Formats: sequence, C-alpha cells, structure tokens
Amino acid sequence: MSDISVNAWAGEMNAPLQPFAFTLGDPGVTDVDIRVDFCGVCHSDLSVLTGAFGELPGPVVAGHEAVGTVVRVGSQVKSLAVGQLVGVGWTAGSCMQCHTCMGGDQQLCGTAQPTIIGHHGGFADHLRASSEWVIPIPEGIDAEKAGPLFCGGITVFNPLLEFDVKPTSKVGVIGIGGLGHLAIQFMDAWGCHVTAFSSSDSKRAEAKAMGADDFVNVTDDAALKAIRGEYDFIMSTINVDLNWNRFIAALKPKGRLHTVGLTPGHFGPSTGRALISGQKSVSGSPTGSPARIATMLEFCARHKIEPVTETLPLSEVNTALERLEAGDVRYRFVLDCR
Amino acid sequence: MSDISVNAWAGEMNAPLQPFAFTLGDPGVTDVDIRVDFCGVCHSDLSVLTGAFGELPGPVVAGHEAVGTVVRVGSQVKSLAVGQLVGVGWTAGSCMQCHTCMGGDQQLCGTAQPTIIGHHGGFADHLRASSEWVIPIPEGIDAEKAGPLFCGGITVFNPLLEFDVKPTSKVGVIGIGGLGHLAIQFMDAWGCHVTAFSSSDSKRAEAKAMGADDFVNVTDDAALKAIRGEYDFIMSTINVDLNWNRFIAALKPKGRLHTVGLTPGHFGPSTGRALISGQKSVSGSPTGSPARIATMLEFCARHKIEPVTETLPLSEVNTALERLEAGDVRYRFVLDCR
Repeated sequence: MSDISVNAWAGEMNAPLQPFAFTLGDPGVTDVDIRVDFCGVCHSDLSVLTGAFGELPGPVVAGHEAVGTVVRVGSQVKSLAVGQLVGVGWTAGSCMQCHTCMGGDQQLCGTAQPTIIGHHGGFADHLRASSEWVIPIPEGIDAEKAGPLFCGGITVFNPLLEFDVKPTSKVGVIGIGGLGHLAIQFMDAWGCHVTAFSSSDSKRAEAKAMGADDFVNVTDDAALKAIRGEYDFIMSTINVDLNWNRFIAALKPKGRLHTVGLTPGHFGPSTGRALISGQKSVSGSPTGSPARIATMLEFCARHKIEPVTETLPLSEVNTALERLEAGDVRYRFVLDCR
Repeated sequence: MSDISVNAWAGEMNAPLQPFAFTLGDPGVTDVDIRVDFCGVCHSDLSVLTGAFGELPGPVVAGHEAVGTVVRVGSQVKSLAVGQLVGVGWTAGSCMQCHTCMGGDQQLCGTAQPTIIGHHGGFADHLRASSEWVIPIPEGIDAEKAGPLFCGGITVFNPLLEFDVKPTSKVGVIGIGGLGHLAIQFMDAWGCHVTAFSSSDSKRAEAKAMGADDFVNVTDDAALKAIRGEYDFIMSTINVDLNWNRFIAALKPKGRLHTVGLTPGHFGPSTGRALISGQKSVSGSPTGSPARIATMLEFCARHKIEPVTETLPLSEVNTALERLEAGDVRYRFVLDCR
C-alpha cells in the first residue's frame, strides 16, 4: 500500500484552524491506520489548541473522538482487520509493558501517547493509532454518534465501575454538557437515583428527559444547603471552581465527590475536618482503559445510550470550536470527515 | 446500688484542670458504669479543653481512652456484666436506630455522643457510657496500655480495612506521634512496606524499630520529590498543613492520601488535575465502629501491638497535658486513675 496522504485541519496558537496536509509514512508494527468518518469535538480540543496543556509546537491536529474504518494494520496487529468499524479516544498508544499497562490500566500509563499532543488527531480524513487503543464498535451503535463516547463517554462511565457505584446509590452530576448529559444516561441505566446539578435552568427539562430524577441549580445556595447528607456519589464534569464544601456536605457518610473536569483551583473541601467527620473521599480520573471502553460500548448498545449531537462538515470545524467555547451546543458537535 | 460519686479532674477555658466531683445518678437502660483504672491522653483532649471544638460550657472532664471494670449495667444491657474489663473511646453512645448505625457505622452516626463533649470523660475514677460503645478487652492486652488503642489506635487501624489496604501495598504514615507510632505497627503487621514520614530525624531509629522500612524527613523536599509514584496509600496523622502536592505526587496511579488529623487548611492537592491524571483519591475518617474496635483488639493481641506509653497519676493530668502540647512524650501518656 502506498503512503497515505492525510487532509487535516490544524491550529497554531491563537489562530483559526487551517487545512493541513501530511503523510503517515510506514506504519509501525502495532499501528493501525483509519479512514476517519466522524470525529466529536471535545472541550479538551479547545484546551490543547489554546495552549492550556503547553505552547503549541507547530500545527496541531486536534480531534480525539474519532470513528472510522481500518484501512491498514501493522505486521503484529492480530486483533483488528481492514474494513472494521473502530474508534479512537483521548489516547493513541501506551507502552503496554509497564506495571500499570500490564495491570489493565493503560489509561494511567506514565508514557501514554495522547491522540492530540505530539500526535495528529481526528480532525482529518485519516488517523493513526496503536492497536491497543483502537476499539471495535459493536452492532447497535450509530457510527455518527459513537465518537463522543470515546472521550466524553468513557470519562464519565469509568468512575461508576472504578468506585463501585451501585444501583441503590443516590448520585449526582455537576455540569450538564457534553460529558454530563452522558453521565445522566449511564447513571439512569445503572439503576441509580440521579440528580442533575447545573447553573442553567434551561437544562432542567432536558436533563429529566435524559433520565435525571431531580434537578438542582448550583447557583441556588438554599437548595444546595437543603440536600445535606443525601448523596453516595457526586461527579463533577465542569472545569471551573465551585464552592465544593456544599457538595461535600451533600454527601452521605462514606460518600465521594469525584471530578473529571480540570478545575483550576483546588478540588475538595476547605478543611480536612469536612472529610474526616463523615469519612468522605474526593477524587479525580481521566479516561478509561481500552477494555473498559469496549465494555461501555456494549452497555450503550444494550441500553440505547447515545450522545445528543449536532453534525457539521469538517470544513466547519472553526464554527464548531467557536460555538463550543460559547456554550452553544446541545450537547456535542460531531464533524463529518468523509 | 447507691448513686456513684465521681472524683474527676475538669477544665474550664484557659485554666488548669481542677478536681471536680459529681454523681452519676440512675443509669439509663443501656448505660454502663465503669470504674476507671487507666485513661490515655489524646491530642483531642487538648483541642476540646482549649476550645477548638467550641466554647466550654462549664467544667469539662476530658479523657476518652478509658479502661476499667464494669460496676453497674442498665436493665437492657445483655452483652456486658459487672466485673468485665472494658474500654471506651471517642464515642460514648450513638442512636443505634438511624440508617448509619443500623449499617454498622455507629462512629458516623449524626447524633453520636462524644465522650468528652457534653458528657463527662475518663479523667476520673468513674465513667458512664452506653453499652454499644463499651468494648470488652480480650486476653493478651495489657490494661495499662489498652487505653490509647480506643482512640489513637482505632483511628489509624480503621482506614486499613475501610480502604482495603493490602499486604502487598506500599504505605506511608505522616507524623510519628501517638497515632503514627501505632499506625506503623499495624501496617507492619499487615504485611506492607511502611515508610515513616516525620519532621523529626530523632524518630528515625524508633520508627524503624517499630516496623518502618523507610524514613523520610518531610522537611527534605528533595527526598519527597524522589519518591514520586511509589505509594498505594499514605495516611496523615498530623493536625498542621503540609505541601500535600508532594504526597499526592508520591502516590501510584489509583493511590490514596488519607487524613485522620484535623488540618486547619484544605487537605489535598492545589488543583483538580493532580487527582485526575493518576485517578487519585483524598479522604479522611474519624474513629471506627464498636465492632471494628473489637476486631482491632484481637489483632493487637495476636500481633503483640501496643502503644509506647508513659504512665502518670491522674493527679498529674496538667503535667501530662503541658508535656503533650510541647511534644514531650514518647508516644502516649496514660493516667493511672485508681
């Protein structure tokens, strides 16, 4: 097979994305080359493109919720075949040899390769990733809506298993956006009592339609005070600071406040005593492992869980990013890269 | 039986403790009256006596690591008999009817009765507590050294079970004092690799003699930087603020930093990102349940774990408190209340 020419959209610091072409070169032995059909647009794309993860070294091809078809595999790839429908999320490779990888937590590998940092992502017609992070998409999942599951979805799904959330749990989701609207659906399918926490009353009806039992506006301090001691598990998906003391107080004894959003300030209560008296935990997590992504996809197919999306052509990626930054999306953009 | 006259030592705000006499009155149906033989002196006694938990309403009898003999039981007490050797810790009663109590977590009961807040404690010749919090002391435990297990001991023992610390875990203890020196012994008996973290190099040899494999001085920033990613579980027993970022960084992926000390400032990393990237947890806990205290006592008897103590007569309680405040004790005072 000849070298693959990639037509992508790439960004430099503080500039709109522009068309950007490159070639993939010969695949490594574990590489998988994918013709991208669709790619979700995640807030982390914006973060990377605006330098929140460090200065951009040159044109950056963002996009890490990619779905497409395998077109070439490296010589040692046994688990995937040309023609398979697959997806790639935040991570495009991990060492597969360290203790963490060997233990099944490849998402926590110290040398994992992010898809869009030092690597070209999915705002393109082709994408390369290492086979362990290329996950087949099962029957029953709509390819056009699958992309956001690979980052937003797994990020909110994984904590439910990692922290042993039970169907009997009373749970909450802070922030009803790209991640939060999927978290509500997962928690509802889990059998939990689900409360949506948002600063936007306009999301009340939508959150309930997606499976939330309750809605609490986080700007309503009296409402937050009224829910003391009620929750087993509250997951925050936002990347701004809130008065976390209120949410710690809302936990039952042994409850957990968990973040998947990069809060700029400290995450947790303002004193250690708030954790001690009720034996409470505060935690965070990134994405999930490849095996966990596969488990999530099966769960989504069985429960008919999918993101609410708006599709734009790849050529309108700048519009998507601008509208995402402005909060003008219900709930996730998908770019059509065909 | 006639009413019991109690000879105690009580404190008012910012004054030395003075002899204080009162009578117990008729016991409630679940009450147990105990002739106190020994009582440990905990830093929380100092905290209560100096108003850290609120203004003192009048003479306060501190002391919540009491060991003695049952002299009277209420009409509904079936589990204890006059003459039994027992101990009482931080809690002297809980409702036994709420969801938390019914679930076995009586130490987290929202209306639990602390032994020394609104109740007279063990710096006295007699003490009353509700039967569920009066724990028999098994064979093989030295009564004179048992007291500190009932608060300091259970506080550091309970997290090992609650957070599923394993014999294969690499663990650390921050602060080698009344609690920390017991934590080292528990973790060593647990089969763990144990690191003692202290600001006092003078404790290096003692910590190792008690079972620590390593010693790291917390004022040695280079040494703290050198242990990145090594620990499964680090327990802090101190009540001052440290640079917790260093200890979060010292955790392995999925590691936990846990506090049993009332830190005045916030406990945890300075940004949420530090928790997310390695899926780390921060938590706190108070004491443990009555059932857990009994389990701990059996474990102590089997592993010959006991606090290192210095015994003074009850009449020298003020000396004990002054020396405790000055850090002049290896590692726990016990008052002889006979």
